[in-house]
Amino acid sequence: MRVLLVGAGGVGTAVTRIAARRDFLTHMIVADYDLSRAEAAVAALGEHEGRFSARRLDASDEAAVRRALVEESCDVLLNATDPRFVMPLFQAALAAGTHYLDMAMSLSSPHGTHPYERCGVKLGDGQFELAAEWERSDRLALVGIGVEPGLSDVFARYAADELFDEIEEIGIRDGANLTVEGYDFAPSFSIWTTIEECLNPPVVYEKERGWFTTAPFSEPEVFDFPEGIGPVECVNVEHEEVLLIPRWVDARRVTFKYGLGDDFIAKLKVLHELGLDSTAEVTVPGRNGPVQVSPRDVVAACLPDPATLGDRMTGKTCAGTWVKGVKDGAAREVFLYHVVDNQWTMREYGSQAVVWQTAINPVIALELIAGGVWTGSGVLGPEALPPRPFLDLLNAYGAPWGLREEN
Amino acid sequence: MRVLLVGAGGVGTAVTRIAARRDFLTHMIVADYDLSRAEAAVAALGEHEGRFSARRLDASDEAAVRRALVEESCDVLLNATDPRFVMPLFQAALAAGTHYLDMAMSLSSPHGTHPYERCGVKLGDGQFELAAEWERSDRLALVGIGVEPGLSDVFARYAADELFDEIEEIGIRDGANLTVEGYDFAPSFSIWTTIEECLNPPVVYEKERGWFTTAPFSEPEVFDFPEGIGPVECVNVEHEEVLLIPRWVDARRVTFKYGLGDDFIAKLKVLHELGLDSTAEVTVPGRNGPVQVSPRDVVAACLPDPATLGDRMTGKTCAGTWVKGVKDGAAREVFLYHVVDNQWTMREYGSQAVVWQTAINPVIALELIAGGVWTGSGVLGPEALPPRPFLDLLNAYGAPWGLREEN
Repeated sequence: MRVLLVGAGGVGTAVTRIAARRDFLTHMIVADYDLSRAEAAVAALGEHEGRFSARRLDASDEAAVRRALVEESCDVLLNATDPRFVMPLFQAALAAGTHYLDMAMSLSSPHGTHPYERCGVKLGDGQFELAAEWERSDRLALVGIGVEPGLSDVFARYAADELFDEIEEIGIRDGANLTVEGYDFAPSFSIWTTIEECLNPPVVYEKERGWFTTAPFSEPEVFDFPEGIGPVECVNVEHEEVLLIPRWVDARRVTFKYGLGDDFIAKLKVLHELGLDSTAEVTVPGRNGPVQVSPRDVVAACLPDPATLGDRMTGKTCAGTWVKGVKDGAAREVFLYHVVDNQWTMREYGSQAVVWQTAINPVIALELIAGGVWTGSGVLGPEALPPRPFLDLLNAYGAPWGLREEN
Repeated sequence: MRVLLVGAGGVGTAVTRIAARRDFLTHMIVADYDLSRAEAAVAALGEHEGRFSARRLDASDEAAVRRALVEESCDVLLNATDPRFVMPLFQAALAAGTHYLDMAMSLSSPHGTHPYERCGVKLGDGQFELAAEWERSDRLALVGIGVEPGLSDVFARYAADELFDEIEEIGIRDGANLTVEGYDFAPSFSIWTTIEECLNPPVVYEKERGWFTTAPFSEPEVFDFPEGIGPVECVNVEHEEVLLIPRWVDARRVTFKYGLGDDFIAKLKVLHELGLDSTAEVTVPGRNGPVQVSPRDVVAACLPDPATLGDRMTGKTCAGTWVKGVKDGAAREVFLYHVVDNQWTMREYGSQAVVWQTAINPVIALELIAGGVWTGSGVLGPEALPPRPFLDLLNAYGAPWGLREEN
């Protein structure tokens, strides 16, 4: 299998390190707008470097991406850029006749008059609109195949197939106890994206009502995460699983709650109240007269780059799917989860836990596609495909998942 | 009396409106870096305009300020700019041989190794270093003669002269119940200056120990403000009174607590934790490539300009001096205060309450100096001069002060 990986940031770099250890990969072209980032990712692979090459590529230039896919005879494009580049990359793969994988879906925009009640443009709408074209081309666009969305969706399908007869609610829950030495406050994931996720209206699915939105930070609950992470305050945020799961899995209700913790939630609220979350430019003094800047960019610039914090980070991160329903006539509640220890990912892969946990999933998916275990055409979520082979391969990669029966 | 007023912002403009109604003033030159601001302040005076003129002047250009004082045959320079311009204006007046008044003193800088225990350069140190030169020139530099510092210092001296035999503690307390229609969060005073005051190490004076600093937001207390404002959470902040009062008034302890309220304190803490209070430049994307900006400027740019909020503001602001000690052998505790209602200042003067309450005090001081009631040479605080005439004139201006006996 020949893969064009677009994006050599934290997640892209971790993808190369995980894929390098697997035989299914014939060649991976590592492409980035900044060639030196792509070259550094390849150079770090040591003995495995031979199956990788670096290339400069602008992810927003659809035609250039299409040409790269054709020139390099790629079977698949793996998108590891930020969500602003989903549509050009998705369309380039369609035009080039390759498969396509990403870890976040095309962006939403809020409802014009009732943003905290009704959906406007939903996450992924831009991609699902082209589903028929993907089916006609007999190619697979596997969307949202990181850890969340991704593994969390595989868990949902697994629960429906093997653990429940009827599902009342599926709630994705994300929580961590990561701390960064030397910083009072240092988010382990891009603050720009975290603001986007958390301050957009959260989306909820209910069978009778369909998809709808709520106010930011709605329905707070304390969820007890496994393997020593413990209780963390979680709130509704906008996330792809809520849009994906109901398309393939029968459940009365689907939510996503992010374990931000009280402190982070309070900080995000302050940023919002002060208008510092905004991407609309403000005018401020510069060295040579007034300049226009986006407040959210300034917030990001004041914080350390999370990709560089791996060495100073301690703790674990958990992605999981809580499911409540009925099995054999009895009530059942389970939490299917995946916990990664930052110390382990740093030692084994030189990658920070959060990016590594995201990166392993598309590599497993590529291996299943290469082996003909996962097949299909059209725009599919991870829950559209058989979950067992995926979960078995996760164990085989040395990063086992877990199941906790709730009482 | 001929006055050079430097600064035609909110406070400077209110100074012109208050001074216009008083006969002691022969002429006031209203100077600003932005000539149109100075012209607008003068034009708004209507029938009183004749005694005022506008002039362009750069407050950081000491030589230009000195020339303006000489050319205009001024008796006194009234500094209504922000504290960064204290030293050039103070030195220009000394060089020109005029009196000098300001409402904030030269800036502090924290102790190099123990910022939250010991003082580094204190507020006003730069000015007091030149005290001997002012004495030799037989001119008066009256520093800190706004409302706080200013009226608060006059109250302290009045308490020492007339209300107490011995003073245990003097605590300046500032609180308000101002709200701005249409905004969840809209500070009524410059956020840039508020951050500077609140995030610098607060300074405290104790007779045995001298001046020392604490951590920001230390010693929180709920103080009950008069005239319907009610209880507000107050914390220690760095302020001039703590540096001025002990030089002329005998007290065992002097503090300044600002009634920021829980919510504002929480917001300032978040700005600090995220590094958004910093004035050190960060690099962010601009329209034509990367630009350097100060995060604190961006915070200010995201909030409405407080000087423009007067007509949407409701409520009152209180400045006051709480004094605890002994009179005629009995314990006594009083709160001397000045409350201003925004609705009244807007109606009477077209000025927002906070800037108006600051501006009235230097005008009263000018009137006392013009009449020979307040005399002196050197660098003096308001508490160095007789308080009664000042307090009587405050009543005569129609903005009476009050005294509350505490039990």
